[in-house]
Amino acid sequence: MNAEKIPNIIITRLPVYLRALQRMADNGLKTTSSQEMGDRVGISAAQIRKDISQFGEFGKQGTGYSIDYLIDKLREILKVDRMWDVIIVGAGDMGHALARYQGFANRGFNVVMIFDNDKNKIGQKIGDFTIEDTANLVERVKAADIKIAMLTLPASVAQGITDKLVEAGVRAILNYAPISLSVPENVKVQHIDPATHLQRMTYYL
Amino acid sequence: MNAEKIPNIIITRLPVYLRALQRMADNGLKTTSSQEMGDRVGISAAQIRKDISQFGEFGKQGTGYSIDYLIDKLREILKVDRMWDVIIVGAGDMGHALARYQGFANRGFNVVMIFDNDKNKIGQKIGDFTIEDTANLVERVKAADIKIAMLTLPASVAQGITDKLVEAGVRAILNYAPISLSVPENVKVQHIDPATHLQRMTYYL
Repeated sequence: MNAEKIPNIIITRLPVYLRALQRMADNGLKTTSSQEMGDRVGISAAQIRKDISQFGEFGKQGTGYSIDYLIDKLREILKVDRMWDVIIVGAGDMGHALARYQGFANRGFNVVMIFDNDKNKIGQKIGDFTIEDTANLVERVKAADIKIAMLTLPASVAQGITDKLVEAGVRAILNYAPISLSVPENVKVQHIDPATHLQRMTYYL
Repeated sequence: MNAEKIPNIIITRLPVYLRALQRMADNGLKTTSSQEMGDRVGISAAQIRKDISQFGEFGKQGTGYSIDYLIDKLREILKVDRMWDVIIVGAGDMGHALARYQGFANRGFNVVMIFDNDKNKIGQKIGDFTIEDTANLVERVKAADIKIAMLTLPASVAQGITDKLVEAGVRAILNYAPISLSVPENVKVQHIDPATHLQRMTYYL
Protein backbone atom coordinates (compact mmCIF):
# COMPACT_ATOMS: atom_id res chain seq x y z
CA MET A 1 0.00 0.00 0.00
CA ASN A 2 2.03 2.90 -1.33
CA ALA A 3 0.53 6.40 -1.25
CA GLU A 4 2.07 7.23 -4.62
CA LYS A 5 0.74 4.18 -6.43
CA ILE A 6 -3.01 4.55 -5.85
CA PRO A 7 -4.46 6.77 -8.60
CA ASN A 8 -5.84 10.05 -7.29
CA ILE A 9 -9.14 9.33 -8.99
CA ILE A 10 -9.69 6.33 -6.70
CA ILE A 11 -8.80 8.38 -3.64
CA THR A 12 -11.48 10.93 -4.62
CA ARG A 13 -14.14 8.19 -4.49
CA LEU A 14 -13.22 6.70 -1.11
CA PRO A 15 -14.75 9.54 0.98
CA VAL A 16 -18.00 9.08 -0.94
CA TYR A 17 -18.01 5.38 -0.04
CA LEU A 18 -17.15 6.24 3.55
CA ARG A 19 -20.03 8.71 3.80
CA ALA A 20 -22.49 6.14 2.42
CA LEU A 21 -21.20 3.48 4.81
CA GLN A 22 -21.46 5.82 7.81
CA ARG A 23 -25.09 6.53 6.91
CA MET A 24 -25.79 2.81 6.68
CA ALA A 25 -24.17 2.30 10.10
CA ASP A 26 -26.25 5.19 11.51
CA ASN A 27 -29.31 3.33 10.24
CA GLY A 28 -28.26 0.19 12.10
CA LEU A 29 -27.09 -1.84 9.09
CA LYS A 30 -24.26 -4.32 9.63
CA THR A 31 -23.33 -5.62 6.18
CA THR A 32 -23.58 -4.33 2.64
CA SER A 33 -22.65 -5.30 -0.91
CA SER A 34 -20.91 -3.44 -3.70
CA GLN A 35 -24.28 -3.49 -5.48
CA GLU A 36 -26.08 -1.75 -2.61
CA MET A 37 -23.27 0.77 -2.17
CA GLY A 38 -23.33 1.41 -5.91
CA ASP A 39 -27.04 2.15 -5.85
CA ARG A 40 -26.49 4.68 -3.08
CA VAL A 41 -23.54 6.53 -4.58
CA GLY A 42 -24.23 6.21 -8.31
CA ILE A 43 -21.08 4.25 -9.11
CA SER A 44 -21.06 0.74 -10.61
CA ALA A 45 -20.65 -2.23 -8.28
CA ALA A 46 -17.68 -3.44 -10.35
CA GLN A 47 -15.92 -0.11 -9.94
CA ILE A 48 -16.49 -0.12 -6.19
CA ARG A 49 -15.10 -3.65 -5.82
CA LYS A 50 -12.08 -2.70 -7.91
CA ASP A 51 -11.45 0.51 -5.94
CA ILE A 52 -11.69 -1.17 -2.56
CA SER A 53 -9.59 -4.17 -3.60
CA GLN A 54 -6.66 -1.80 -4.24
CA PHE A 55 -6.16 -1.71 -0.51
CA GLY A 56 -6.58 -5.41 0.30
CA GLU A 57 -9.26 -8.04 0.65
CA PHE A 58 -12.11 -6.52 2.66
CA GLY A 59 -15.16 -8.36 1.40
CA LYS A 60 -16.10 -12.02 1.60
CA GLN A 61 -17.57 -13.80 -1.41
CA GLY A 62 -21.27 -14.22 -0.74
CA THR A 63 -21.49 -12.30 2.52
CA GLY A 64 -20.40 -8.86 1.31
CA TYR A 65 -18.66 -6.23 3.38
CA SER A 66 -18.86 -5.74 7.13
CA ILE A 67 -19.88 -2.07 7.33
CA ASP A 68 -18.06 -1.30 10.58
CA TYR A 69 -14.89 -3.02 9.41
CA LEU A 70 -14.90 -1.23 6.05
CA ILE A 71 -15.54 2.12 7.79
CA ASP A 72 -12.54 1.52 10.04
CA LYS A 73 -10.36 0.57 7.10
CA LEU A 74 -11.40 3.53 4.95
CA ARG A 75 -10.89 5.92 7.86
CA GLU A 76 -7.42 4.49 8.32
CA ILE A 77 -6.57 4.72 4.61
CA LEU A 78 -7.85 8.31 4.39
CA LYS A 79 -6.13 9.15 7.70
CA VAL A 80 -9.35 10.36 9.29
CA ASP A 81 -9.06 7.82 12.10
CA ARG A 82 -7.65 10.83 13.97
CA MET A 83 -8.77 14.47 14.34
CA TRP A 84 -7.32 17.21 12.13
CA ASP A 85 -7.36 20.84 13.19
CA VAL A 86 -8.69 23.06 10.41
CA ILE A 87 -8.86 26.84 10.00
CA ILE A 88 -11.31 28.98 8.03
CA VAL A 89 -10.01 32.04 6.20
CA GLY A 90 -12.81 34.43 5.25
CA ALA A 91 -15.68 35.26 7.60
CA GLY A 92 -18.36 36.01 5.01
CA ASP A 93 -21.57 34.00 4.50
CA MET A 94 -19.65 30.86 3.57
CA GLY A 95 -17.19 31.24 6.42
CA HIS A 96 -20.12 31.57 8.82
CA ALA A 97 -21.80 28.51 7.33
CA LEU A 98 -18.61 26.46 7.73
CA ALA A 99 -17.95 27.72 11.27
CA ARG A 100 -21.42 26.52 12.27
CA TYR A 101 -21.40 23.31 10.23
CA GLN A 102 -22.09 20.31 12.45
CA GLY A 103 -20.77 17.67 10.08
CA PHE A 104 -17.03 17.92 10.68
CA ALA A 105 -16.45 16.31 14.07
CA ASN A 106 -17.56 12.79 13.15
CA ARG A 107 -15.62 12.94 9.87
CA GLY A 108 -12.20 13.69 11.37
CA PHE A 109 -12.08 17.50 11.46
CA ASN A 110 -12.10 20.14 14.13
CA VAL A 111 -12.40 23.83 13.21
CA VAL A 112 -10.08 25.75 15.53
CA MET A 113 -9.71 29.31 14.16
CA ILE A 114 -11.35 31.72 11.74
CA PHE A 115 -9.62 34.68 10.12
CA ASP A 116 -10.62 37.75 8.14
CA ASN A 117 -8.85 40.94 7.07
CA ASP A 118 -11.93 43.16 7.53
CA LYS A 119 -11.42 45.45 10.54
CA ASN A 120 -15.18 45.42 11.15
CA LYS A 121 -15.21 41.65 11.48
CA ILE A 122 -12.01 41.07 13.47
CA GLY A 123 -12.86 40.48 17.13
CA GLN A 124 -16.50 39.57 16.42
CA LYS A 125 -17.86 36.20 17.45
CA ILE A 126 -19.22 33.33 15.36
CA GLY A 127 -20.55 30.85 17.89
CA ASP A 128 -17.56 30.07 20.10
CA PHE A 129 -15.02 31.51 17.67
CA THR A 130 -13.57 35.01 17.70
CA ILE A 131 -12.65 36.22 14.22
CA GLU A 132 -8.89 36.80 14.09
CA ASP A 133 -6.81 39.17 11.95
CA THR A 134 -5.20 37.59 8.86
CA ALA A 135 -2.14 39.70 9.73
CA ASN A 136 -1.45 37.08 12.43
CA LEU A 137 -2.26 34.12 10.19
CA VAL A 138 1.25 32.80 9.53
CA GLU A 139 2.36 33.05 13.14
CA ARG A 140 -0.83 31.47 14.54
CA VAL A 141 -0.93 28.60 12.03
CA LYS A 142 2.76 27.79 12.48
CA ALA A 143 2.46 27.82 16.27
CA ALA A 144 -0.54 25.46 16.18
CA ASP A 145 1.05 23.26 13.46
CA ILE A 146 -2.11 23.36 11.34
CA LYS A 147 -2.02 21.56 7.99
CA ILE A 148 -5.54 22.16 6.61
CA ALA A 149 -7.38 25.37 5.66
CA MET A 150 -10.74 26.24 4.11
CA LEU A 151 -10.54 29.37 2.00
CA THR A 152 -13.75 31.38 1.58
CA LEU A 153 -12.31 34.67 0.33
CA PRO A 154 -13.07 36.73 -2.77
CA ALA A 155 -11.03 35.75 -5.83
CA SER A 156 -9.03 39.00 -5.69
CA VAL A 157 -7.29 38.15 -2.41
CA ALA A 158 -7.35 34.33 -2.50
CA GLN A 159 -3.89 33.81 -4.05
CA GLY A 160 -2.15 36.20 -1.66
CA ILE A 161 -3.60 34.42 1.37
CA THR A 162 -2.83 31.03 -0.19
CA ASP A 163 0.85 32.02 -0.37
CA LYS A 164 0.73 32.87 3.34
CA LEU A 165 -0.97 29.57 4.17
CA VAL A 166 1.73 27.66 2.31
CA GLU A 167 4.42 29.69 4.08
CA ALA A 168 2.79 28.77 7.40
CA GLY A 169 2.98 25.05 6.59
CA VAL A 170 -0.57 24.34 5.36
CA ARG A 171 -0.57 21.33 3.03
CA ALA A 172 -4.26 20.98 2.12
CA ILE A 173 -6.61 23.78 1.03
CA LEU A 174 -10.34 23.54 0.39
CA ASN A 175 -10.90 26.40 -2.03
CA TYR A 176 -14.30 28.12 -2.27
CA ALA A 177 -12.91 31.05 -4.26
CA PRO A 178 -13.75 30.94 -7.98
CA ILE A 179 -10.12 30.88 -9.17
CA SER A 180 -7.33 28.33 -9.66
CA LEU A 181 -4.78 28.62 -6.87
CA SER A 182 -1.07 28.23 -7.58
CA VAL A 183 0.59 26.06 -4.95
CA PRO A 184 3.79 24.01 -4.69
CA GLU A 185 3.60 20.34 -5.65
CA ASN A 186 3.47 19.16 -2.05
CA VAL A 187 0.27 21.14 -1.33
CA LYS A 188 -3.14 19.73 -2.27
CA VAL A 189 -6.08 21.89 -3.33
CA GLN A 190 -9.68 20.77 -3.65
CA HIS A 191 -12.00 23.18 -5.38
CA ILE A 192 -15.61 23.15 -4.24
CA ASP A 193 -18.30 24.97 -6.18
CA PRO A 194 -22.03 24.46 -6.53
CA ALA A 195 -22.12 25.08 -10.30
CA THR A 196 -19.97 22.00 -10.95
CA HIS A 197 -22.38 19.86 -8.94
CA LEU A 198 -25.41 21.32 -10.73
CA GLN A 199 -23.80 20.55 -14.10
CA ARG A 200 -23.55 16.89 -13.08
CA MET A 201 -27.35 16.76 -13.09
CA THR A 202 -28.40 18.90 -16.06
CA TYR A 203 -27.12 16.18 -18.40
CA TYR A 204 -30.02 14.02 -17.24
CA LEU A 205 -32.75 16.68 -17.53
CA MET B 1 -24.77 9.53 -28.11
CA ASN B 2 -27.28 7.99 -25.78
CA ALA B 3 -27.84 9.53 -22.36
CA GLU B 4 -28.31 6.10 -20.82
CA LYS B 5 -25.13 4.60 -22.21
CA ILE B 6 -22.53 7.03 -20.83
CA PRO B 7 -21.55 5.89 -17.32
CA ASN B 8 -22.52 8.38 -14.62
CA ILE B 9 -18.93 8.42 -13.39
CA ILE B 10 -17.80 9.99 -16.67
CA ILE B 11 -20.58 12.57 -16.51
CA THR B 12 -19.37 13.59 -13.04
CA ARG B 13 -15.94 14.44 -14.47
CA LEU B 14 -17.09 16.53 -17.44
CA PRO B 15 -18.00 19.64 -15.37
CA VAL B 16 -14.51 19.53 -13.84
CA TYR B 17 -12.98 19.51 -17.33
CA LEU B 18 -15.32 22.30 -18.38
CA ARG B 19 -14.34 24.47 -15.40
CA ALA B 20 -10.63 23.97 -16.15
CA LEU B 21 -11.17 24.80 -19.82
CA GLN B 22 -13.15 27.94 -18.99
CA ARG B 23 -10.30 29.14 -16.75
CA MET B 24 -7.81 28.50 -19.56
CA ALA B 25 -10.03 30.49 -21.96
CA ASP B 26 -10.27 33.30 -19.38
CA ASN B 27 -6.47 33.36 -19.35
CA GLY B 28 -6.38 33.75 -23.14
CA LEU B 29 -5.29 30.23 -24.03
CA LYS B 30 -6.51 28.76 -27.32
CA THR B 31 -5.43 25.11 -27.32
CA THR B 32 -4.63 22.51 -24.70
CA SER B 33 -3.67 18.86 -24.37
CA SER B 34 -5.04 16.04 -22.27
CA GLN B 35 -1.71 16.19 -20.40
CA GLU B 36 -2.12 19.87 -19.51
CA MET B 37 -5.76 19.36 -18.53
CA GLY B 38 -4.75 16.38 -16.44
CA ASP B 39 -2.15 18.41 -14.54
CA ARG B 40 -4.81 20.99 -13.73
CA VAL B 41 -7.56 18.66 -12.58
CA GLY B 42 -5.56 15.79 -11.10
CA ILE B 43 -6.84 13.13 -13.50
CA SER B 44 -4.60 11.14 -15.85
CA ALA B 45 -4.26 12.28 -19.46
CA ALA B 46 -5.32 8.82 -20.66
CA GLN B 47 -8.52 8.99 -18.61
CA ILE B 48 -9.35 12.45 -19.97
CA ARG B 49 -8.84 11.33 -23.59
CA LYS B 50 -10.99 8.27 -22.97
CA ASP B 51 -13.76 10.28 -21.29
CA ILE B 52 -13.91 12.91 -24.01
CA SER B 53 -13.74 10.38 -26.84
CA GLN B 54 -17.04 8.89 -25.58
CA PHE B 55 -18.77 11.81 -27.22
CA GLY B 56 -16.89 11.93 -30.51
CA GLU B 57 -13.56 13.01 -31.94
CA PHE B 58 -12.74 16.42 -30.53
CA GLY B 59 -8.94 16.50 -30.51
CA LYS B 60 -6.43 16.34 -33.33
CA GLN B 61 -3.35 14.17 -33.08
CA GLY B 62 -0.39 16.45 -32.41
CA THR B 63 -2.30 19.74 -32.07
CA GLY B 64 -4.47 18.88 -29.08
CA TYR B 65 -7.88 20.32 -28.29
CA SER B 66 -9.25 23.68 -29.36
CA ILE B 67 -10.33 25.11 -25.99
CA ASP B 68 -13.29 27.14 -27.30
CA TYR B 69 -14.57 24.22 -29.36
CA LEU B 70 -14.28 21.77 -26.49
CA ILE B 71 -16.03 24.24 -24.14
CA ASP B 72 -18.91 24.54 -26.63
CA LYS B 73 -19.19 20.78 -26.96
CA LEU B 74 -19.06 20.09 -23.21
CA ARG B 75 -21.66 22.79 -22.57
CA GLU B 76 -23.88 21.18 -25.17
CA ILE B 77 -23.39 17.68 -23.75
CA LEU B 78 -24.08 18.87 -20.19
CA LYS B 79 -27.01 21.01 -21.42
CA VAL B 80 -25.58 24.20 -19.96
CA ASP B 81 -25.52 25.89 -23.35
CA ARG B 82 -28.78 27.39 -22.06
CA MET B 83 -29.82 29.03 -18.77
CA TRP B 84 -31.56 27.01 -16.04
CA ASP B 85 -33.68 28.69 -13.38
CA VAL B 86 -32.77 27.46 -9.90
CA ILE B 87 -34.34 27.98 -6.49
CA ILE B 88 -32.78 27.98 -3.03
CA VAL B 89 -34.70 26.42 -0.14
CA GLY B 90 -33.31 27.49 3.21
CA ALA B 91 -32.24 31.07 3.96
CA GLY B 92 -29.57 30.37 6.59
CA ASP B 93 -25.85 31.09 6.20
CA MET B 94 -25.50 28.71 3.27
CA GLY B 95 -28.65 29.98 1.56
CA HIS B 96 -27.29 33.52 1.86
CA ALA B 97 -23.93 32.44 0.48
CA LEU B 98 -25.61 30.79 -2.52
CA ALA B 99 -27.98 33.72 -3.13
CA ARG B 100 -24.96 36.03 -3.36
CA TYR B 101 -22.69 33.62 -5.25
CA GLN B 102 -21.43 35.21 -8.46
CA GLY B 103 -20.35 32.00 -10.16
CA PHE B 104 -23.69 30.71 -11.50
CA ALA B 105 -24.51 32.96 -14.45
CA ASN B 106 -21.56 32.00 -16.66
CA ARG B 107 -22.05 28.30 -15.85
CA GLY B 108 -25.67 28.05 -17.01
CA PHE B 109 -27.68 28.85 -13.88
CA ASN B 110 -29.88 31.66 -12.72
CA VAL B 111 -31.15 31.82 -9.14
CA VAL B 112 -34.76 33.03 -9.25
CA MET B 113 -36.33 32.43 -5.82
CA ILE B 114 -35.38 31.70 -2.22
CA PHE B 115 -37.65 30.09 0.36
CA ASP B 116 -37.69 29.54 4.11
CA ASN B 117 -40.30 28.45 6.63
CA ASP B 118 -39.11 30.82 9.38
CA LYS B 119 -41.69 33.58 9.89
CA ASN B 120 -38.87 35.95 10.91
CA LYS B 121 -37.09 35.45 7.60
CA ILE B 122 -40.06 35.44 5.21
CA GLY B 123 -40.35 38.83 3.50
CA GLN B 124 -36.76 39.83 4.26
CA LYS B 125 -34.36 40.66 1.45
CA ILE B 126 -31.14 38.97 0.35
CA GLY B 127 -29.73 41.24 -2.31
CA ASP B 128 -32.51 41.48 -4.92
CA PHE B 129 -34.42 38.47 -3.57
CA THR B 130 -37.29 38.51 -1.12
CA ILE B 131 -37.42 35.37 1.02
CA GLU B 132 -40.67 33.52 0.27
CA ASP B 133 -42.76 31.19 2.42
CA THR B 134 -42.20 27.46 1.81
CA ALA B 135 -45.99 27.12 2.17
CA ASN B 136 -46.17 28.51 -1.39
CA LEU B 137 -43.29 26.41 -2.69
CA VAL B 138 -45.22 23.83 -4.74
CA GLU B 139 -47.46 26.39 -6.39
CA ARG B 140 -44.63 28.83 -7.20
CA VAL B 141 -42.26 26.16 -8.56
CA LYS B 142 -44.97 24.56 -10.70
CA ALA B 143 -46.04 27.90 -12.14
CA ALA B 144 -42.47 28.81 -13.08
CA ASP B 145 -41.69 25.27 -14.35
CA ILE B 146 -38.50 25.05 -12.30
CA LYS B 147 -36.51 21.83 -12.48
CA ILE B 148 -33.52 22.52 -10.20
CA ALA B 149 -33.33 23.28 -6.46
CA MET B 150 -30.55 23.80 -3.94
CA LEU B 151 -31.51 22.59 -0.50
CA THR B 152 -29.79 24.22 2.49
CA LEU B 153 -32.13 23.15 5.28
CA PRO B 154 -31.47 21.34 8.56
CA ALA B 155 -31.54 17.54 8.29
CA SER B 156 -34.80 17.35 10.28
CA VAL B 157 -36.91 19.07 7.61
CA ALA B 158 -34.95 18.24 4.45
CA GLN B 159 -36.92 15.12 3.45
CA GLY B 160 -40.31 16.78 3.88
CA ILE B 161 -39.32 19.68 1.64
CA THR B 162 -37.73 17.27 -0.84
CA ASP B 163 -41.09 15.53 -1.20
CA LYS B 164 -42.69 18.89 -1.97
CA LEU B 165 -40.00 19.74 -4.51
CA VAL B 166 -40.57 16.44 -6.29
CA GLU B 167 -44.34 17.03 -6.23
CA ALA B 168 -43.71 20.44 -7.80
CA GLY B 169 -41.75 18.90 -10.67
CA VAL B 170 -38.15 19.45 -9.55
CA ARG B 171 -35.85 16.86 -11.12
CA ALA B 172 -32.42 17.83 -9.78
CA ILE B 173 -31.55 18.66 -6.16
CA LEU B 174 -28.24 19.90 -4.83
CA ASN B 175 -28.36 18.74 -1.23
CA TYR B 176 -26.41 20.56 1.50
CA ALA B 177 -28.29 18.81 4.31
CA PRO B 178 -26.28 16.06 6.03
CA ILE B 179 -28.73 13.24 5.22
CA SER B 180 -29.53 10.93 2.31
CA LEU B 181 -32.69 12.08 0.53
CA SER B 182 -35.22 9.58 -0.79
CA VAL B 183 -36.38 10.53 -4.27
CA PRO B 184 -38.01 8.76 -7.21
CA GLU B 185 -35.71 7.27 -9.86
CA ASN B 186 -36.27 10.16 -12.29
CA VAL B 187 -34.95 12.72 -9.79
CA LYS B 188 -31.20 13.31 -9.42
CA VAL B 189 -29.56 14.31 -6.16
CA GLN B 190 -26.02 15.58 -5.73
CA HIS B 191 -24.76 15.77 -2.19
CA ILE B 192 -22.24 18.50 -1.44
CA ASP B 193 -20.32 18.54 1.79
CA PRO B 194 -16.98 19.99 2.80
CA ALA B 195 -15.90 16.98 4.90
CA THR B 196 -15.86 14.73 1.82
CA HIS B 197 -13.58 17.17 0.02
CA LEU B 198 -11.27 17.46 3.03
CA GLN B 199 -11.02 13.66 3.21
CA ARG B 200 -9.76 13.64 -0.38
CA MET B 201 -6.66 15.48 0.82
CA THR B 202 -5.84 13.93 4.21
CA TYR B 203 -4.73 10.75 2.44
CA TYR B 204 -1.74 12.72 1.14
CA LEU B 205 -0.76 14.37 4.44
